[in-house]
Amino acid sequence: MAPKSQALQTNMDVDYVISYRFAKTEKAVAVQKFEKLVEALASVGLQTEVRNGDNHSVLLFIRVSSDEHLFGEIYRSRVRDWIHGVRAAAPPKETREALESEPLYEAERLRIIYQLITNPVSEGGAGITPKEGEWKEVEALFALHDHAYNKDWLKKWTGQWFLKPEDIDDIRNRLGEKIAFYFAFTQSYFAFLLFPAAFGASAWLLLGSFSPIYGIVSSIWCIVFTEWWKHQEVDLAVRWGVRNVSRIETKRKDFKHEKQITDPITGEKVLLYPATKRLQTQLLQIPFALGAAGLLGALIATCFGIEVFISEVYGGPFKTILVFLPTVILTTVMPVLTGILTSFATRLTQLENYETEAAYQTALTQKIFVLNFITSYLPIFLTAFVYVPFGNIIVPYLDVLSLTVRPFAEDEKQLQAPEAGFTINPDRLRKQVIYFTVTAQIVNFGMELVMPYLKRRGFAKYKKMQSERAAKNGGAPPSPAANDPPEDAAFLERVRQEAELDVYDVTTDLREMVLQFGYLSLFSVIWPLTAVSFVINDWLELRADAMKICVEMRRPTPWRADTIGPWLDSLSFITWLGSLTTSALVYLFSNDGLGPDGHPSSITGWALLLTVFFSEHAFFIVRWGVRLAISKLDSPGLQKERRDRFLVRNQYFKENLSLLEKIPRMAEAGGDITRESLEEDARRASLHATTPEIRFWARQKGWKEVAAVGKGYIERAAVEVSPETKKEL
Amino acid sequence: MAPKSQALQTNMDVDYVISYRFAKTEKAVAVQKFEKLVEALASVGLQTEVRNGDNHSVLLFIRVSSDEHLFGEIYRSRVRDWIHGVRAAAPPKETREALESEPLYEAERLRIIYQLITNPVSEGGAGITPKEGEWKEVEALFALHDHAYNKDWLKKWTGQWFLKPEDIDDIRNRLGEKIAFYFAFTQSYFAFLLFPAAFGASAWLLLGSFSPIYGIVSSIWCIVFTEWWKHQEVDLAVRWGVRNVSRIETKRKDFKHEKQITDPITGEKVLLYPATKRLQTQLLQIPFALGAAGLLGALIATCFGIEVFISEVYGGPFKTILVFLPTVILTTVMPVLTGILTSFATRLTQLENYETEAAYQTALTQKIFVLNFITSYLPIFLTAFVYVPFGNIIVPYLDVLSLTVRPFAEDEKQLQAPEAGFTINPDRLRKQVIYFTVTAQIVNFGMELVMPYLKRRGFAKYKKMQSERAAKNGGAPPSPAANDPPEDAAFLERVRQEAELDVYDVTTDLREMVLQFGYLSLFSVIWPLTAVSFVINDWLELRADAMKICVEMRRPTPWRADTIGPWLDSLSFITWLGSLTTSALVYLFSNDGLGPDGHPSSITGWALLLTVFFSEHAFFIVRWGVRLAISKLDSPGLQKERRDRFLVRNQYFKENLSLLEKIPRMAEAGGDITRESLEEDARRASLHATTPEIRFWARQKGWKEVAAVGKGYIERAAVEVSPETKKEL
Repeated sequence: MAPKSQALQTNMDVDYVISYRFAKTEKAVAVQKFEKLVEALASVGLQTEVRNGDNHSVLLFIRVSSDEHLFGEIYRSRVRDWIHGVRAAAPPKETREALESEPLYEAERLRIIYQLITNPVSEGGAGITPKEGEWKEVEALFALHDHAYNKDWLKKWTGQWFLKPEDIDDIRNRLGEKIAFYFAFTQSYFAFLLFPAAFGASAWLLLGSFSPIYGIVSSIWCIVFTEWWKHQEVDLAVRWGVRNVSRIETKRKDFKHEKQITDPITGEKVLLYPATKRLQTQLLQIPFALGAAGLLGALIATCFGIEVFISEVYGGPFKTILVFLPTVILTTVMPVLTGILTSFATRLTQLENYETEAAYQTALTQKIFVLNFITSYLPIFLTAFVYVPFGNIIVPYLDVLSLTVRPFAEDEKQLQAPEAGFTINPDRLRKQVIYFTVTAQIVNFGMELVMPYLKRRGFAKYKKMQSERAAKNGGAPPSPAANDPPEDAAFLERVRQEAELDVYDVTTDLREMVLQFGYLSLFSVIWPLTAVSFVINDWLELRADAMKICVEMRRPTPWRADTIGPWLDSLSFITWLGSLTTSALVYLFSNDGLGPDGHPSSITGWALLLTVFFSEHAFFIVRWGVRLAISKLDSPGLQKERRDRFLVRNQYFKENLSLLEKIPRMAEAGGDITRESLEEDARRASLHATTPEIRFWARQKGWKEVAAVGKGYIERAAVEVSPETKKEL
Repeated sequence: MAPKSQALQTNMDVDYVISYRFAKTEKAVAVQKFEKLVEALASVGLQTEVRNGDNHSVLLFIRVSSDEHLFGEIYRSRVRDWIHGVRAAAPPKETREALESEPLYEAERLRIIYQLITNPVSEGGAGITPKEGEWKEVEALFALHDHAYNKDWLKKWTGQWFLKPEDIDDIRNRLGEKIAFYFAFTQSYFAFLLFPAAFGASAWLLLGSFSPIYGIVSSIWCIVFTEWWKHQEVDLAVRWGVRNVSRIETKRKDFKHEKQITDPITGEKVLLYPATKRLQTQLLQIPFALGAAGLLGALIATCFGIEVFISEVYGGPFKTILVFLPTVILTTVMPVLTGILTSFATRLTQLENYETEAAYQTALTQKIFVLNFITSYLPIFLTAFVYVPFGNIIVPYLDVLSLTVRPFAEDEKQLQAPEAGFTINPDRLRKQVIYFTVTAQIVNFGMELVMPYLKRRGFAKYKKMQSERAAKNGGAPPSPAANDPPEDAAFLERVRQEAELDVYDVTTDLREMVLQFGYLSLFSVIWPLTAVSFVINDWLELRADAMKICVEMRRPTPWRADTIGPWLDSLSFITWLGSLTTSALVYLFSNDGLGPDGHPSSITGWALLLTVFFSEHAFFIVRWGVRLAISKLDSPGLQKERRDRFLVRNQYFKENLSLLEKIPRMAEAGGDITRESLEEDARRASLHATTPEIRFWARQKGWKEVAAVGKGYIERAAVEVSPETKKEL
């Protein structure tokens, strides 16, 4: 048996692996479909090898049999890009030359092979759609990890404080632009965070919480970051040659059309789904958002109410235990509710029946963002804008809760508020923000990294126990590895492990970052150390995500992207909302606004509104200014684009030059009027009946005569006015 | 002498006329320059004729000597358009064919000849820049009116209620896209106005002033109009083939560079002016705007204060005369002040030293808009948001004015407010709006149409008187017409008249329309009949502008444009501001908010702010929705663009098809693996030391073997779990 290290060193030239699982399929059908699968792959020039897999699955290894043919596919893909405007210039006309001038990178290779396998037969692919329709036995289609590279990657990243642009380029070359965009975004965000971290720490020491100065600086920072990222995104897209790639629309397979028409303009067949019908479905988003907000809000508000009641009103028995009640409710009910709402959102988005994958993803992301927004920020909103200002009015109503705990109460007194009356706990807000920006981030980080590991270990143990038990019962199925050729055994074991890993979804990680940015934008004025916590968290997060991709997930299929997509809108939205909340929080809580009973005493509605109103418009103006300033920035990517465009334009000019040269110039006509043409004109004038026009233009011939006549006019006119000359006459 | 009607019928094939005025130039220099002028024109293939002009001027008539050469210029211009992305497709390769597939229109012809005359010699033009530098004797360069067409035009427009798209197309063909855009905008605006006119009239009858319903409907209408125009603008630009024409940047002649660098990317020489230096100058806009607002505001506020004092406080003598005092001050001082500020703005914009003509115009327009905004809307703002709510506080301070009128007062009593105390005149606001939306519009209309006529008549009379006086003195200069050939006399007289006309500036008319739209958006809730007045005014305005162009102005040079330019931003700004003022006005004045002393009694700051805040955000949401809805609209122009783009893409595909066909496809590699290649592999394996990879891929050869081996795996695996089969074993 080959040593394990060797198994990690080679991928046996495998490009993709298909895990074909037939546990739920009849034997004969499974065999037949497998045969069809292998044939389909062979038909697009892919070589295959089959090996045994775990529990009712086989592993099908795929590789490209001829590099030359693959280059043809790549070239075609590049030409298509050019026609869709992704590249400014067409690739050189010779394949070899094209590949030399712009070498193939691994992600491009893998993407093209993936498309070759999954594209419909009509578009030249094998038409294999994992888990869908005819191919539901194809459980997974994935590339193998490059363990040598992964090891270097992790080692390199953990060893340096800052990621360099080349590190991100490396990810793009390996894992594709979509994932590279996530890392680029997080790295930019991390770099930008250093400023508010430093400034926040100073503000925390010198200015305290709710400082207007911190609020203004933080808001401006958020604007600069958001706008700068928009600029950076374009730059990266140009640098990676994927600008406008989102314009190449991939049709959704699940799109159902209502009618088919022939486009009167292009003559192509177009599948149509009426926009009005989609709009009707889209309108369901409003009740959905309201319902979700209502449900989640009610849950959060209830737990909040219970917590306030128990910790600040209730004085009865079991207080130490009851204090945990809201947390228990939240941690049990919330995931269930969120799960239900998420699947509801997915169902709704499917019903909206989008034509393209991008539109579908955008619509889904928007809905998910609403859910996340509520669960992430509502608790703090409640504390800041309901509990603190209106606590004195609302809390007494919480006495209804005392009915619930009455059975536990030993005497009436315990159910009543302390004699001094209820007082608002002004520290609650800060504690809550610290919880969300520190504790929750750590917990989340742990869950993300540790949970999958535990899950994997548990699963492996379970499988081992199962096979041991089966062995005891005598009917033990032989290990799938039993038939492995000894020299491939280690490799195959590794592939079987990779086949069992989860699929990496980059949007989850992106969402996490955007939500984190939200705390900074919306609430960091409450606790200026927020950014310090995030700097530490994000430094780890970047490395942990790398590790997650390397160790805990299957190697992701490299997709292209030219933006972080709908999350960009979320960023803008959060930045805008931050201008409202920050100003409101500063007004409500600064300047010792807290009265003796712990709630702000001297606040007035109009002043609050004026503050928010002013702040929002200052936000608009600053954003406009920042946008303008950033739009003037030059960058390597934009320079590259300009150069490409210039070259293309030049090429056009050259191509048309010979043609344009042939066409006569006006200037050449300058010398046309000769004695001959004059005579010709005179002859024509005598031949035909002359018109006033001909006679008008016949009075002076050639510019010299015009100049001479003009000279006469000028000299005579000058004579008329010059008094001296007049006298002489 | 030819009859006058004939002079109006023919333009003698003249393309352009130059009025060369040498009153302030020395004789010898004038002659020399004239010679140079004629030579320069001849050098670009233009034929000339010279005739005597009025008072120290000669008229130089220009025509293209060879149509074929002109076509060459036109073709070159079209190719340049294509390279700059104005056209999707290159023009057909044969000139003749290109002109047949897309015939030349008059405005295009005139534009190209104009450019031929004015472009620098380095770009193939004659380099003649009217009124500037070397050519300051070239007083004017203009085309002659087409009187037959003008007559038809006026007759047609006055005879129909609605202008059809073809009417606007006709203007585009004659006067160019820039002017056509003004007429298209005004016509769209007029058509859109019919709705608020009808709705406003009903609202006036049924709901009265300050109706929230009217306010909401009016605001939505403003949004729809603004957004629809943005859509329409693109459509028209595509229809007229000028989309993206604003991207072709024309350099400003007055641009002064600080250094010259070679672009590292394109290798072109670039003239640079540091952006930071420009920014410093641009920052002067802030003190300028504040200063202008201060000056104009002080003037308006003073007059306002005097007016209020005299009409509502003062009871002394000369009241009937003194009442006109503010009007007199305003009408005398305001134009002077505005004039000074406008020239100041122009100077400031020149100092900003923009590189392109478009950037210069935008910057200037913005400054002018600020001035216009103040003079047009500030009086109403003062009444609505200062006089009415705070009148009771402010008006008593106006008593300082009584010191001024004390000399006129007969007794102390006349200087004191009526005994009942000062009461606010709630009707003042409405009267003011009616003044601005009816009276001022009529006055303005009259000024625009009648003033130039009177000016022309007066000027002609003055000239006649002068020559009569000169004749009496004996030294009468002979009439310039004295030497005219009798058959051209009428024509030349007409040309001399046209040379004296003003130059038409379309931005003035556009500004008028945008400012009018402002009254509707900002204040029409005060007097819902506003739109009715505007409908009537604009119907006349459209025709009056046509008449103005035909009769009172020189024929405008046809410029291209793909938008109404910076006024679009003004429109958006006004629409936004309307959402604030309308809601504030409705809140302040509706629901019998006026107390017994005539000023709103029950208003509270926070409710006002909340109303405005809510209204503004409703505005943002509605605008987003309207934008979305309008972006889904299809239109002939957009269809045309799509068709063009499709054709270009198809052409690319075809051009590359033969090439792509030659490159091998992956699918062709499918059958590669034959017995021979297998044997070859085996031989290779024995020749070289085999690697694990080679051995891995050598186990199964060809897809059939893979399928067979897979079948084995599947069947065995299925056996393992099926309990029945197990028992059988």
